[in-house]
Amino acid sequence: MEDVLIRITEQVKLQDPVLIEGLPGVGNVGKLAIDYLKEKLNATSFGWIHSKFFPPQVYVSEEGLIRLVSNDLSYVRAAGPAQRDLILLGGDYQGITPEGQYELTDRVLALASQMGVREVYTLAGFAQGHLVEGPRVLGAATSEARVEAMKKFGVVFSRTDPGGGLIGASGLFLGLGRVYGMEGVCLMGETSGYFVDPRSAEAVLRVLSKVLNLTIDFTELEHKAKEIDRIAQKFREAETPTRGAETPAQAREDLGYIG
Amino acid sequence: MEDVLIRITEQVKLQDPVLIEGLPGVGNVGKLAIDYLKEKLNATSFGWIHSKFFPPQVYVSEEGLIRLVSNDLSYVRAAGPAQRDLILLGGDYQGITPEGQYELTDRVLALASQMGVREVYTLAGFAQGHLVEGPRVLGAATSEARVEAMKKFGVVFSRTDPGGGLIGASGLFLGLGRVYGMEGVCLMGETSGYFVDPRSAEAVLRVLSKVLNLTIDFTELEHKAKEIDRIAQKFREAETPTRGAETPAQAREDLGYIG
Amino acid sequence: MEDVLIRITEQVKLQDPVLIEGLPGVGNVGKLAIDYLKEKLNATSFGWIHSKFFPPQVYVSEEGLIRLVSNDLSYVRAAGPAQRDLILLGGDYQGITPEGQYELTDRVLALASQMGVREVYTLAGFAQGHLVEGPRVLGAATSEARVEAMKKFGVVFSRTDPGGGLIGASGLFLGLGRVYGMEGVCLMGETSGYFVDPRSAEAVLRVLSKVLNLTIDFTELEHKAKEIDRIAQKFREAETPTRGAETPAQAREDLGYIG
Amino acid sequence: MEDVLIRITEQVKLQDPVLIEGLPGVGNVGKLAIDYLKEKLNATSFGWIHSKFFPPQVYVSEEGLIRLVSNDLSYVRAAGPAQRDLILLGGDYQGITPEGQYELTDRVLALASQMGVREVYTLAGFAQGHLVEGPRVLGAATSEARVEAMKKFGVVFSRTDPGGGLIGASGLFLGLGRVYGMEGVCLMGETSGYFVDPRSAEAVLRVLSKVLNLTIDFTELEHKAKEIDRIAQKFREAETPTRGAETPAQAREDLGYIG
Repeated sequence: MEDVLIRITEQVKLQDPVLIEGLPGVGNVGKLAIDYLKEKLNATSFGWIHSKFFPPQVYVSEEGLIRLVSNDLSYVRAAGPAQRDLILLGGDYQGITPEGQYELTDRVLALASQMGVREVYTLAGFAQGHLVEGPRVLGAATSEARVEAMKKFGVVFSRTDPGGGLIGASGLFLGLGRVYGMEGVCLMGETSGYFVDPRSAEAVLRVLSKVLNLTIDFTELEHKAKEIDRIAQKFREAETPTRGAETPAQAREDLGYIG
Repeated sequence: MEDVLIRITEQVKLQDPVLIEGLPGVGNVGKLAIDYLKEKLNATSFGWIHSKFFPPQVYVSEEGLIRLVSNDLSYVRAAGPAQRDLILLGGDYQGITPEGQYELTDRVLALASQMGVREVYTLAGFAQGHLVEGPRVLGAATSEARVEAMKKFGVVFSRTDPGGGLIGASGLFLGLGRVYGMEGVCLMGETSGYFVDPRSAEAVLRVLSKVLNLTIDFTELEHKAKEIDRIAQKFREAETPTRGAETPAQAREDLGYIG
Repeated sequence: MEDVLIRITEQVKLQDPVLIEGLPGVGNVGKLAIDYLKEKLNATSFGWIHSKFFPPQVYVSEEGLIRLVSNDLSYVRAAGPAQRDLILLGGDYQGITPEGQYELTDRVLALASQMGVREVYTLAGFAQGHLVEGPRVLGAATSEARVEAMKKFGVVFSRTDPGGGLIGASGLFLGLGRVYGMEGVCLMGETSGYFVDPRSAEAVLRVLSKVLNLTIDFTELEHKAKEIDRIAQKFREAETPTRGAETPAQAREDLGYIG
Repeated sequence: MEDVLIRITEQVKLQDPVLIEGLPGVGNVGKLAIDYLKEKLNATSFGWIHSKFFPPQVYVSEEGLIRLVSNDLSYVRAAGPAQRDLILLGGDYQGITPEGQYELTDRVLALASQMGVREVYTLAGFAQGHLVEGPRVLGAATSEARVEAMKKFGVVFSRTDPGGGLIGASGLFLGLGRVYGMEGVCLMGETSGYFVDPRSAEAVLRVLSKVLNLTIDFTELEHKAKEIDRIAQKFREAETPTRGAETPAQAREDLGYIG
């Protein structure tokens, strides 16, 4: 089989589209964000990706139906002149080897390039190693002009973060994107790194929606974030001498189910 | 050499055949089941598979004869109108890397597709982490119709099991099978996961024989299951304060020899 | 670069040649044997093999000269009608991944097949896990006729050894050799598995020389074996309460230098 | 994408150029040396290399700009008849797998060969496992003539170092270089192996500058070396009972920032 099998289910013509990537990673921020975006913007699926660079795994739904792990491609047409056409890349996994990361990213960029993409936004979490109240959105970009433009939307460009660079799809889509002549920005929501973080995803999406003039209803994501807050609170209490009604193990398990 | 080397030793024409996969895995349930099926249905070998995705290993028989590790293909013709032609896939190993899993599965599916296969059954064990009396057969399928059909044969579709999905050939044959337009079912016999489990294999085969109208004599498999029961019993006794005549190490060794 | 780069430095025509493989492995028995054979039979080099399946390593001689790790091919013409032409495969490493093992073996077999090889002998050590006095030579073969033939030369075919089969080049050359229509025998000298073992290599070569009517002077190999015996003796003494003049560390270091 | 993507940004014709390799490794000696050489000789970039054998990583500058990890190619034209044209290979990483090491080295050598390279110098560190005062430069070469030539420049060819050979790019460029008919020398600066070592890089460059008649101002490198000396001194003091003003953790952190 092909290393990366892209199946296009709908041939779609888009006007100067923007590619937005959000795959699983730190705090699952990128995936939470792209999934929320797909739902709220009623994105239309136009293709999926299977690959030997994903685990040899199927998911089984509660009804007993199997689904092979994949990445998926969907699009959203601009609702007006102030907006842009969007291509959204989401899915279950990033490539599980360095070679897989490069190959998957390159294949999607080649397709995006054919579809006219010249601009990429990647969504990710940035692990701070401690609980974060009011997460900032850190940025990295392909040009000074973009750095300046992003600062106006409140994106923070820090001298020290991310110190060692970015590893994985969110960095690679920008780095390899340049080989395709694309410009781009990585938006990283601060997060503890200990559990899935819808509040960080919300922070990232609030910036993105301003940049791309998107109207997004954040009610559900805020609800999810509060649920996590509640559980994280239990978690903290559980670590203090006076324990709450639920055990820490219970709280940790709850955190595991969210996402 | 080719990554996957399939050698067809007999060109065989089959009527709308069903592919049945049973490779080593949890409790060796899939392999035990397919080997028993091959023997009891007098399956005819028509090909074998060598691959660099298997270990670089040969087995040596008691007579000193070597045999390169492989997967093997055999067929069984329908004994009457109520039955179907069968293609059986068994062997020594699953692919030992994710890439190998995908590549091996894809190559067998491509061959099966050429031979007219539109339906796949995969046989596996499901590890419960504790000893299981009267193992249930859990299921996962490619369509709701198949889920409903399987329920009538006693297959259990659980909301929680398997929670994280299936990893390995039994899931992948269904997941990639869909790319080839095939429908299918995975039958998973509950097992402890601690040793080879002929009782679980028997449970799986009893369901399969009902689904496919096969007549199978289970005497030998039951005998093997009782042997394991006997050893497992020793194992349990050995873990209690009053030890039996044999040591736990001895019992464990016995378990290792079964299969 | 090619995965396996075979450079033939002399085009040589041989009469029904036998391929003999001896690569590093348990007790370095195979490599010791083939190196001794090359020297004593004045084998002529006709090619070498570089590969990305070897480590990215060069050796540096005492004079400061570098040499890229490799496998090497040499030949010996029959000295009379009772002998056969020989092709010898030796070198620094076996392939360091399963894929590499298969690919390297296959490429050498393809070349050997072109050169008329229909018979393969592989030389190896068999680790017993304890010191072995008077090592036996265990065998594994591709046919019953060969098993019987080898027994006459004192080769031992044991019901239990090697129980789990053979992993690595010595097994693979026989297993894949069958795909090329070759027959063959693996000769395994018993060894402790703890250090390089010229005595085991000698045992293997004594059998091989009888099988192939080779006249080999074993003086040097016996000398080397006695040197190891002497060091191993120190090693044993060092492990007893009354220690010898040299420390165990010293003895162990000496063992490391032999080979 | 190609496994190794070489992008040539300037087509340059050079006169019998010498290839000099310096990639990250022990003590970062090779990278420190090549980076210093590029700066002091005003080398002109003429290409870069991306590869799936590098980590899937981008660096982010203090200004927030991303850069995909790469190797880079630059050249220096001879300043007079006593000098040679130079091609310099530097970068962020060596290949992260054995296969990647071979493939990257081979691709650069193929390019270098096309550009007329017949001679290679590789720069590296040699880990001694203890602090080294006044590091020697050890050598390994492709011919006796070169060994003798290098001895005149003070390069040490030791019978015992490097005992096990060289692993990585610096050895491989010489070993595979021979397949391309190139001759070469590896210059290894002694270093502790515990931290980046500009003093060792300086020792290597002092030899290289004599060999190739280069005029290099070592002021900055000496400054960097003294900075490391100062920190290493603190480190040593910190390990003695009477501790200095800074803690060992502080000193270690300082060491980590140098480079």
